[in-house]
Amino acid sequence: MARSCLTIILAAGQGTRMKSALPKVLHPVAGLPMAAHVARTAQAAGSESIAVVIGHGGAEVRQTLSGMLDGATFHEQDGQLGTAHAVLAARDSIAKGYDDVLVMFGDTPLVRPGVMRAARARLAEGASVAVVGFRPADPSGYGRLIERDGELVAIREDREANDEERRIGFCNGGIMAFSGDSILELLNAVGNDNAKGEYYMTDAVEIARSLGRRVVAIEAPVEDVVGVNTRRDLAAVEAIWQHRARCDFLDSGVTMLAPDTVFLHHDTKIEPDAIIEPNVVFGPGVEIKAGARIRSFSYMEGAVVGENAEIGPFARLRPGARLSEKSKVGNFCEVKNSEIGEGAKVNHLTYVGDSVVGPRANLGAGTITCNYDGYGKHLTEIGANAFVGSNTSLVAPVRIGDNAYIASGSVVTDEVPDDAVAFARSRQINKEGLAPKLRARFKAAKEAKKG
Amino acid sequence: MARSCLTIILAAGQGTRMKSALPKVLHPVAGLPMAAHVARTAQAAGSESIAVVIGHGGAEVRQTLSGMLDGATFHEQDGQLGTAHAVLAARDSIAKGYDDVLVMFGDTPLVRPGVMRAARARLAEGASVAVVGFRPADPSGYGRLIERDGELVAIREDREANDEERRIGFCNGGIMAFSGDSILELLNAVGNDNAKGEYYMTDAVEIARSLGRRVVAIEAPVEDVVGVNTRRDLAAVEAIWQHRARCDFLDSGVTMLAPDTVFLHHDTKIEPDAIIEPNVVFGPGVEIKAGARIRSFSYMEGAVVGENAEIGPFARLRPGARLSEKSKVGNFCEVKNSEIGEGAKVNHLTYVGDSVVGPRANLGAGTITCNYDGYGKHLTEIGANAFVGSNTSLVAPVRIGDNAYIASGSVVTDEVPDDAVAFARSRQINKEGLAPKLRARFKAAKEAKKG
Amino acid sequence: MARSCLTIILAAGQGTRMKSALPKVLHPVAGLPMAAHVARTAQAAGSESIAVVIGHGGAEVRQTLSGMLDGATFHEQDGQLGTAHAVLAARDSIAKGYDDVLVMFGDTPLVRPGVMRAARARLAEGASVAVVGFRPADPSGYGRLIERDGELVAIREDREANDEERRIGFCNGGIMAFSGDSILELLNAVGNDNAKGEYYMTDAVEIARSLGRRVVAIEAPVEDVVGVNTRRDLAAVEAIWQHRARCDFLDSGVTMLAPDTVFLHHDTKIEPDAIIEPNVVFGPGVEIKAGARIRSFSYMEGAVVGENAEIGPFARLRPGARLSEKSKVGNFCEVKNSEIGEGAKVNHLTYVGDSVVGPRANLGAGTITCNYDGYGKHLTEIGANAFVGSNTSLVAPVRIGDNAYIASGSVVTDEVPDDAVAFARSRQINKEGLAPKLRARFKAAKEAKKG
Repeated sequence: MARSCLTIILAAGQGTRMKSALPKVLHPVAGLPMAAHVARTAQAAGSESIAVVIGHGGAEVRQTLSGMLDGATFHEQDGQLGTAHAVLAARDSIAKGYDDVLVMFGDTPLVRPGVMRAARARLAEGASVAVVGFRPADPSGYGRLIERDGELVAIREDREANDEERRIGFCNGGIMAFSGDSILELLNAVGNDNAKGEYYMTDAVEIARSLGRRVVAIEAPVEDVVGVNTRRDLAAVEAIWQHRARCDFLDSGVTMLAPDTVFLHHDTKIEPDAIIEPNVVFGPGVEIKAGARIRSFSYMEGAVVGENAEIGPFARLRPGARLSEKSKVGNFCEVKNSEIGEGAKVNHLTYVGDSVVGPRANLGAGTITCNYDGYGKHLTEIGANAFVGSNTSLVAPVRIGDNAYIASGSVVTDEVPDDAVAFARSRQINKEGLAPKLRARFKAAKEAKKG
Repeated sequence: MARSCLTIILAAGQGTRMKSALPKVLHPVAGLPMAAHVARTAQAAGSESIAVVIGHGGAEVRQTLSGMLDGATFHEQDGQLGTAHAVLAARDSIAKGYDDVLVMFGDTPLVRPGVMRAARARLAEGASVAVVGFRPADPSGYGRLIERDGELVAIREDREANDEERRIGFCNGGIMAFSGDSILELLNAVGNDNAKGEYYMTDAVEIARSLGRRVVAIEAPVEDVVGVNTRRDLAAVEAIWQHRARCDFLDSGVTMLAPDTVFLHHDTKIEPDAIIEPNVVFGPGVEIKAGARIRSFSYMEGAVVGENAEIGPFARLRPGARLSEKSKVGNFCEVKNSEIGEGAKVNHLTYVGDSVVGPRANLGAGTITCNYDGYGKHLTEIGANAFVGSNTSLVAPVRIGDNAYIASGSVVTDEVPDDAVAFARSRQINKEGLAPKLRARFKAAKEAKKG
Repeated sequence: MARSCLTIILAAGQGTRMKSALPKVLHPVAGLPMAAHVARTAQAAGSESIAVVIGHGGAEVRQTLSGMLDGATFHEQDGQLGTAHAVLAARDSIAKGYDDVLVMFGDTPLVRPGVMRAARARLAEGASVAVVGFRPADPSGYGRLIERDGELVAIREDREANDEERRIGFCNGGIMAFSGDSILELLNAVGNDNAKGEYYMTDAVEIARSLGRRVVAIEAPVEDVVGVNTRRDLAAVEAIWQHRARCDFLDSGVTMLAPDTVFLHHDTKIEPDAIIEPNVVFGPGVEIKAGARIRSFSYMEGAVVGENAEIGPFARLRPGARLSEKSKVGNFCEVKNSEIGEGAKVNHLTYVGDSVVGPRANLGAGTITCNYDGYGKHLTEIGANAFVGSNTSLVAPVRIGDNAYIASGSVVTDEVPDDAVAFARSRQINKEGLAPKLRARFKAAKEAKKG
């Protein structure tokens, strides 16, 4: 039977060095708050319960995360008295009784599920405590993990390490896993007899050893335990996240000509043989189907790009844009809350909002759906095979029939029946020979202004 | 007299790890299929004949490459029985008799002509076989090139190498050159008595040695022999290609503020003292003249940007855009199949298609040439010094005369003579005090909808 | 009392390897000519006087820099006879009498003020000469700085160094500081008895030593002394400058998701908790207030973005754009010389030039201010809460009243009073059943053209 698991996410720190009004753990990576990344990793490692320990900016952290993490509990830490103290703020959750309790950090968002699964596996084998370690390029400054016979004997702070210990490259990554039946006993025993007067979770290692419990270390890749303290760290973590996600897409058969210039969101979906050109930004909720081509300088949010559809360069898809197979949205076009039918073309300088565009319809350059009256948004329907001449305004609500044809430069306010041609523009008047006089007037006016 | 030369390009592999419907060797680097890069390198090294060995996706490979490589022959490989077997699929071409026969790989597109010229030089000096080697950072896993007295004695597979051999850093890059009078004899002698039962071209080394022929190795830079097996490899190869091309342009006197963000095409031409800002994408067939400035976020295809002309930011030039000296195409403007005259300005939110814009003409913001009627494309002519007011629609075919002046917001359907002023817009009607009532109506409608 | 200080900037070199019509020292880094970066560093280190030694392209260098560097003097170097000769071209400036004289290079723009301050501090302690050194990864080829007992004994050229000296990693960076009372004496004593017959400033080290003066070396970070000889160097220096500036902004509390893709100008100002998305370009004179969000693919020049305002993606701000608090400029919008009131919205495909947009006004998609008549630019005033329907042309000079409402697709040429509704568009005419006939005609015309 599967072991039950609680994950406690420490998210109470102030994050002063971020110099931000936003609590540190809410700073997003790939559009998702760091603490939510941690929760997702925990869930992927089989943790069914999440307890978040909050402190600085706690109300904001609770509000944001509770909307993302169904069923998570929030626990206020009173003061900042160390990691053991923080974990014990979630005492009520722990007391519900779990086989495994994982302690993770809200500012360490790159841990992958495999690491936490490995820690849990060690608990299942009988360990009381598993500590996540890593091997940094330069271990100086880190606490060293001292192992003997496959067990973790101690975590030695750098300043207390002897020369031999200092040569150990395996370091404490902070993250720990406890068996549910020992965590409270161990953490309650942690004292604060140290320089800062704080309660350190790492002390649980020696306490467990003294009680004859098994303590082990597991190794995580260095990148997984990168913590964020500054905006530079945040940018670095974002870069690692993006690199991982780009590689995953490449491996699955997506073409990216310059992966480093493609910015993905945590929930981006791209099918194989889609082609992503350089300089593309994915906002939340985007799905690209097989064979679609996303040209450079495109920015998408909440959109579906259908099979073999093509967008950009310079395409802007906003939430609710749904592009059918083989449709095209070209340069300087924005599509919002609209369906673009199969094979339809929206090629140049066009705004399509709150619309349903039929299959094979063609919207000329500069077409604008006038969907907003200052209060409500209104629907524009464009029929199959309709041809909308360039620089046309479609004043919604309005319906353009199948096969209808609209003369360029029209302002269409009324329904255009199927097969009808609509004109809504003025007759042209030429005033011959007037241009030189007009120019003279404008020129004189300009000079008068200067003089 | 120049030695005759055939290049056999092996392009039959399946490329399973690409996870792509497109045959591997057709995946483009800088817009050109990898196999075509290889062919161009061969041609630049003086190889007048190209034979392509095809297999998986052969019909598609043949069709694409035959359009790019005049006179190339295509040879179907029956099954995948090793490199020697693949080369022998081109037996008919070889039999025509060449001094030199080069064997290259369709998925190794970064080899430069100097490498192949060096191999041919060794054949000209009397070698029967020349093997291209390289020195990877970590040689483990590669076949080692064992040399003695300036000759290549053997290619030792990693798993068969002794400790001393394993310390050799010089590795087999796969590419080989054969004298035309020995290639068939050598490859016919290759057997398949090995684990996979395949015919390996590398066996030709020992066969040649046993016949007393001279075999040599030449060294290529590591980057030249990078092969593509996955999309990650493809992205890496694209990055190397781009880096090389950017450096070449910098060295020739082109300014790029952030070269890493400029994406070049294999056929891009840029003259010295042109300035390329960050984030610019070159599609096929673009030529930038001296002193031109390409501002950020510009995307060009099939276009010529004249001397001291300026485009962007956010300019989109499509095939047939020809910008004369000192002309300007500004933000959110698209130009397609059009000439822009000397000093003419197309500055904002404009679409110019199938047009001839005269010198010093000025197109106001939002100008749209309505060039398409759903079937044909029509010509818009704009005379010298013409002034096209903002947000004007020019319904093609139409001619705007020299020095003509078009009032803003007009829909021009008929010719405007030289020096004439054209109006094609409605009179304005103000309904005083109506706005609050209208707003109340819209607001009520919105609430009704919700309720 | 503060010591007086003159900085001599050597800016006479030809820069042949740049392959440029522009004199080398005028090539910009972050939009500022390299020589001006050097002058600013000198000023930040407390140098009140600047003397620029010019030669190749001297007139252009003088013209450009004199506009940037108030009170700088310019001195023509007659011929290219070495650095000592170059410095002595500024003899008149030196003769005015300064405590400290710094000699810097117009093509070495990354030196930071701390380096020059350190050099000056050594002069204040009694040194006659201070040489700026650095420790490159590979010192071979550089002149080595030979120190003994805290003094600089000699600068040994690589080709004259013995084995022990060659192992020294501390190298000559070129930049020097002289006490004002010894510089002329020392440099006048420099001879040209060497292979090239040039007068080398470095010879002043041995001359000073022979006169019993104190000579010292100070160390600069490697990056500070990178000189620019080619466009590749220029790109590398630009990259270092950008990296430094990005880090400074991150450290001050600005969020950048992908700092490497944000291009800053030398005078860019960004307040904390502003968010800069990937792919943003800052031209000259941009100021971003706290909490503002700059979305991807935005390009700004001479603009102020107010608190909590949002621009982009694809926003183009040109000089004189002043966006008030919480205003919004969206995709494919250009704003030039205009005020956008608090909370006003300019969201899609709009051109706003020479305008004042009132608070909470809403400009629909495709709005164009027609501000230019070919000679003068005219003002568009849009009142508070005004609603400008989509695809409207506002022909300036024109005033739209507070709370006014303009119907979509209008061409507004006259004032719209407060609370009024304006229409300026044609009635729509539908010709039922005409579309198939029209299509048949267009199709026939197309075929006739082909045939």
